[in-house]
Amino acid sequence: MALSRSRRKKEIIAPGCTRVQFLVAYDGTTLAGWQSQAEGGTVQDHLEKAFAAVAGKKIGIQGAGRTDAGVHALAQSAHVDLPLGRLSLAQWRHAVNAHLPHIIRVTEMIEKSAWFHARFTAQSKAYRYRIFHAPWLDPLEIDRAWHVPKEVDWARVEEAAKVLQGRHDFRAFCANRGWPESSTVREVWSIRLKRRGHVVTLDFAGEGFLYKMVRLLTGTLLRVGQGKATLEDVQRWLHDPQSEKTTFCAPACGLYLVKVGYARRAKSV
Amino acid sequence: MALSRSRRKKEIIAPGCTRVQFLVAYDGTTLAGWQSQAEGGTVQDHLEKAFAAVAGKKIGIQGAGRTDAGVHALAQSAHVDLPLGRLSLAQWRHAVNAHLPHIIRVTEMIEKSAWFHARFTAQSKAYRYRIFHAPWLDPLEIDRAWHVPKEVDWARVEEAAKVLQGRHDFRAFCANRGWPESSTVREVWSIRLKRRGHVVTLDFAGEGFLYKMVRLLTGTLLRVGQGKATLEDVQRWLHDPQSEKTTFCAPACGLYLVKVGYARRAKSV
Repeated sequence: MALSRSRRKKEIIAPGCTRVQFLVAYDGTTLAGWQSQAEGGTVQDHLEKAFAAVAGKKIGIQGAGRTDAGVHALAQSAHVDLPLGRLSLAQWRHAVNAHLPHIIRVTEMIEKSAWFHARFTAQSKAYRYRIFHAPWLDPLEIDRAWHVPKEVDWARVEEAAKVLQGRHDFRAFCANRGWPESSTVREVWSIRLKRRGHVVTLDFAGEGFLYKMVRLLTGTLLRVGQGKATLEDVQRWLHDPQSEKTTFCAPACGLYLVKVGYARRAKSV
Repeated sequence: MALSRSRRKKEIIAPGCTRVQFLVAYDGTTLAGWQSQAEGGTVQDHLEKAFAAVAGKKIGIQGAGRTDAGVHALAQSAHVDLPLGRLSLAQWRHAVNAHLPHIIRVTEMIEKSAWFHARFTAQSKAYRYRIFHAPWLDPLEIDRAWHVPKEVDWARVEEAAKVLQGRHDFRAFCANRGWPESSTVREVWSIRLKRRGHVVTLDFAGEGFLYKMVRLLTGTLLRVGQGKATLEDVQRWLHDPQSEKTTFCAPACGLYLVKVGYARRAKSV
């Protein structure tokens, strides 16, 4: 979320270290989500262990945001401060990947200035939600898509998607959790639906999304498409601050973090 | 292979039964291939067990052709003779799927005349081979593509693909096995290369393919692209009956049986 950017100060980077952004792809099926946990098994835990194995000392990393257990990433973004003397960036990537399980891969490493912060300078997020719409589930889509066997009116889903686009208070489309959110207002730039055979994809782009927001938006859109919620319900959830929350959360397995966007040059503020 | 069609006689179908073609999708990663084995664990074994569970008696099925362990199918074709009184085709599909592991799904069932035979009336096959071309392997492509990290000259691959198209004696591109092949001449109608990001697909279409032929063609194409074989080698393997066999077999995980084609109306012969 870019909200905290104006309050940011340039961070102090250890001498001899360089701030490095890196992109991570993962198959979230058997992972316990992004955020480090005492029990381990998260993407952050695996990455910090791999960086430590290469560096020979503990190295902390900072992700652009959390993803839940079961959620996949094509290009999660994170940063780390690395001593770049001994190894080039390509060698770091190669060495870190050698210490990671195959279901997590660092795909890119990019040198950045000390102003770059994976989370606080992020300006946009793109998510994809994949649905498999047929009476049977394609074996190659197990854990990769939400299986929706029943009838869906996709034209109504598109109508509801149009209602949800824009700057709104999405408090009804957000699960509670420890992480404090200063505001539940977000701008969703676009929700685009594509159908190709039995696979339906919903592409979400916006400045940022609340906890479980994409899955709650998707679950709600499908409910509208199945006649179990109306466009008026959607309007009420968006505009009536007293309204109940939606409870139609699509499963994690269909969700992909596609991209985290930053300004071309991280400006000093 | 359509070769045996002219020798075919109309088969006798048990009274009260109907010949039914069905399409099967599977994730071949943990399967022991198509063809029934004493130890079980093959697609045919699972399907025959599922049909028997629904019918209450042993039911044999016939596939269009074998696929090896690890090879996937989007639409393998097979036939079975079913009593259609009690259950409709949609109900049969649903019931059979309920008795199959999730990695195998019957996606379609179509009523056919007694002349239809999944293997002997097949007139074409389409296979896709997927390659992931990057230093790292996308976690979502594990067991779904061949990871090729080294440099490849894709223009040379396309040149070699053009040489391989057409009617040739493919004896150099065929592994030996028990199944007797009356002839090793086949017509490959097209080999099309597409690149999209790091994913390269090779689409093969032809009247039929020999045992391991698509994987041997793919392995050879990649060898040419990596400068380890020449166009002259390919010409020699195709046209010199005394030449050695190619030994560049691409791994099973990248191969997908996409379609088995039949004439619009199975003609009596």
